[in-house]
Parts: sequence; C-alpha cells; structure tokens
Amino acid sequence: MNKIDQVLTKQQQNKGDRYLYIIKIGGNVIDNSENLYRFLKDFTALPGFKILVHGGGKVATQLSETLGVEAKMVDGRRITDIETLRVVTMVYGGLINKNIVAQLQRFGNNAIGLTGADGDFIRAKKRPVKKIDYGFVGDLDENSIKPQNLISLMDAGFTPVFCALTHDGAGQLLNTNADTIASALAVALAKYYHTTLIYCFEKKGVLKDINDEESLIREIDPQYYEELKEQQVIHSGMLPKLDNAFTAIARGVKKVIIGHSNDLGNIKEHQPFGTNLIEHYL
Amino acid sequence: MNKIDQVLTKQQQNKGDRYLYIIKIGGNVIDNSENLYRFLKDFTALPGFKILVHGGGKVATQLSETLGVEAKMVDGRRITDIETLRVVTMVYGGLINKNIVAQLQRFGNNAIGLTGADGDFIRAKKRPVKKIDYGFVGDLDENSIKPQNLISLMDAGFTPVFCALTHDGAGQLLNTNADTIASALAVALAKYYHTTLIYCFEKKGVLKDINDEESLIREIDPQYYEELKEQQVIHSGMLPKLDNAFTAIARGVKKVIIGHSNDLGNIKEHQPFGTNLIEHYL
Repeated sequence: MNKIDQVLTKQQQNKGDRYLYIIKIGGNVIDNSENLYRFLKDFTALPGFKILVHGGGKVATQLSETLGVEAKMVDGRRITDIETLRVVTMVYGGLINKNIVAQLQRFGNNAIGLTGADGDFIRAKKRPVKKIDYGFVGDLDENSIKPQNLISLMDAGFTPVFCALTHDGAGQLLNTNADTIASALAVALAKYYHTTLIYCFEKKGVLKDINDEESLIREIDPQYYEELKEQQVIHSGMLPKLDNAFTAIARGVKKVIIGHSNDLGNIKEHQPFGTNLIEHYL
Repeated sequence: MNKIDQVLTKQQQNKGDRYLYIIKIGGNVIDNSENLYRFLKDFTALPGFKILVHGGGKVATQLSETLGVEAKMVDGRRITDIETLRVVTMVYGGLINKNIVAQLQRFGNNAIGLTGADGDFIRAKKRPVKKIDYGFVGDLDENSIKPQNLISLMDAGFTPVFCALTHDGAGQLLNTNADTIASALAVALAKYYHTTLIYCFEKKGVLKDINDEESLIREIDPQYYEELKEQQVIHSGMLPKLDNAFTAIARGVKKVIIGHSNDLGNIKEHQPFGTNLIEHYL
C-alpha cells in the first residue's frame, strides 16, 4: 500500500463530515439552456463532494434522424443497435458531457467528464436477450461500482460528471439508464459519505395531481409510498424513479430528493426543496 | 496543504525512477482498426507512467459531410466554425476517445478519457483573428498546463487519454492541434518525470526518401536537423512536427521519437524504434 492509499484508507474509516450530493439531471434540463445554466451554477455552489449524472435530451434523437438512424422504442425503452450506440456515444459522451464540463469549469468547479468506461468506474453487463433484444444496453449490479477509484478522484479535487454510458470491461461501451447510474453510485458511496441523491427534472417533485404544481408532496416514507401506490395517486412514469429511490434508501443512502432543477439553490438557502423520500417520518 | 498534497510534493522533489511516455497517434492509426488494436496493446505494455493523445481521423470529415457541414480548409488548416466544433466535440471527445478508453480497459489499462476542459488540464486561448479567422481554435502557451492536477490523476493510478480539444476557462471548448497538445504536455511534465515524447504515424520515421521506408534516419540532433533542412531532404509536412519536437527537447524533454505505430512494441523489446530526436550525439 503506497502513502496515498494509506491516507485515503484512513479518511474512509469514518464518514466524519464527508457529505456527498449525487445529482441526476434529465433531458428536459439539458434541452433548456437557461435552466441548464442556472442548474450548473447552483450545483457548483453546493457544499461538500458532488457528482453529476446526466441523461440525453433531444439532441441524440435529432442527430439520429438527420443521420437516418431509426430510433427504435419498445415499451418506452430505447433499443440500442450499433448505429444508435455510435450516436449516443457522440452526443452523451462528447457533445453534452464536454459542454457541461466546460460550463462547470467556467464557474470554478473542477469537473471531469466521464463514461463508466473511464477509470473503470462503472462496469455493466450487457442485458441478456429474452423476449426483447435491447441491443447494447448495460445493466448494473452490486459489483458494478468499485468506490475506491472514485473516492481517489474526488479526494484529488475533481467533480465527476457521468453520462449515461458504461462498459463491459471487454471493450464494449453500453447505453445505460442515467437514473440507475445515479442510484447505483449513491448506494456504492453511501458507506463512505453522508449521501443525498437528487433527481432534478421539470416538475416541483412528486405531485398528487400531475397538472397542479401546488399539489406537491413534501415527504414520503415507504409506508406512505405504498398507500399512494394503492390509491394510484402516483403517475406511472414516476414509479421506476421512486422504486429506485426507496431501494437506495434501504441500502444506506441518507435521503433522496425529487425536484425541479431551478429549485436546487434552495438547499444552500436552507429552503424546502422538492419531494423528500426518507426512511421514516420522525 | 492537505496530506495528499504533502505526499505528492515530496514525490516531485526528485524525478527518481519516474518515467513518463507521452504518445500521440494520428488519424491514420485511428482509421485502421487492426493497427489501432495493436498499438493500444503495445501502449498498455509500456512501463511507467503513460499519456495518450489522439487526433481525429476520417470519421469527423465523414460525419461533417453526412450532416452537410462544409469542411473549410485554409493552408491545410481546418477552420472551426460552430458547426464543425459540434462535430469534433462529438467525434473526438465522444466516439473516438471513449472507444479508445473502452479498448484500453479491456487490456487492463486504467484509462480515463479527457479533453483539456476536464480537470482544467489544458486551458487554451482562442486564436486571435488576423488575416484568417480560424474560428474556435485554441492556441497553447507556457501557462496552459498546470502539472499538479495531472500528476494527482496519474498518481491515483489513471492513464490520461487526451483528444484534440481544450477550453478557454470561460465555458468555450476549442479545437486544438493534437501534436501541439502532446508536446506542451511533455514540456510541462518534464520537470517531474524523465519524459519521452513519441509521435506515432504510418511511416517508419523521418525518411531521407519519402518513398523508401529503408531510408529511415535513426538519430537527428539539432545541428544535423539544420543540415537536413538546408538540403531540403525533409518533407514539408514533417517540418512542424520536428520543430515542435526540438523545441520540446530544448525545454527539458529527454527524447522525442517519430515512428510507426506498429513498431511501438520495440521499446519494450529494447529494439530500435523510429527516428530518435536527441539533444546532441554522444
């Protein structure tokens, strides 16, 4: 063990005051340059360690159309053939990721743009072909993320910015759901940091009435979540996000927040922000 | 100064046995998947610290054509308008860079793919408009590279893989010559490592007769270089590379090698490799 490893190992014996925010932004934030600018500024102002995970947005679809690559969807999921993988590697890993990094640098945030292949940070398995062949899509498991490399990177002062790409360790890049990447990172790092996972999108949070931003639910614990599901209050598109979130909480993540990207600044101002998913009500 | 910085600073007081290879590959290597595979395997097998810098290749030109982005050239130099910058950000920063990283990971090399914006590793200045407006092109100077961040990254066990993009620190990505990036990195790091800079391309090295691979010149020192230039032996396309190389040597780089990507393995085998540019003959 070299000296640097010794120092790191010592730091990891105790979370101490090591706080980590893992924040995922979706396509709707990326597609709106004003919202994106505001978000990146607020992200930079957050205290402690930070990781950003971003999805795709319209650009990949537009580029696919221009290139004549047909977008294939089954049950709302993208099928990633080799041509689509090329497009998302260019758009997610290049265009979007590197422009976000350049913007963060402008705000003084020492960002470093990554796929899961970089640094072997996220190793996935190509989804097995059953009824549907999803193509070059990666699934994560509990061994996908080895925290040590990421901790070294953050301790060296860098802010990781992940796009929705991983690899299989055998040379193949894989398209991977950004929500899943964010929650897997949160679970893997929760042992080393007081970890908050935040999903930023274009709504104020989980709404009782999807058409009424005032119907925001401030806090949900697992029991209330079951009730809300029984009452069919929660919009179906939100269910995978919330399932992901409560799994993360059950596995050590302190808190999951779902909220509007424009409200991220509330954290620093100690103002309420979005829907807080918690282990149980106090 | 934190503990990690203290450890690093101590290591930097003496190059000791810290050897660094900085290797640039051009488009011709990237466009040939067999040569690229072989090169990446040989690159991984090199001892010591390593940095890879890669150029573009045909893919950017092809994508530009498909997208109807006209490739503008003046005096053999690419003009980078905003549309061209988008294309090279996708192709250099995304498609090529991330596929190289995935391949290196397959060989057990813990590569991390970068632009100069990532980690603020290479900060350039947009080229001033004089006779020609080169567009979003970055020029480097002696302040462009702050070695500390890169040293931290390499000491943490990562192999940097740079594409031909930098940033201006104010949010703007810039297209930047890969040869220049490689020599600037070599000069900036020569204080901390015994540094060898290698340009890999599709010829055996500097040839007396460009059509005869057997006419390879094994060693050139600055005085012989002047003679060769006077005799007009050296192909004009090679002059910027060699000027760059001798500048790097004058500024502390131990050796510059120009050779065929397929011959890189010779280093490990202690076999002669390419044209060696040296400070002076022994």
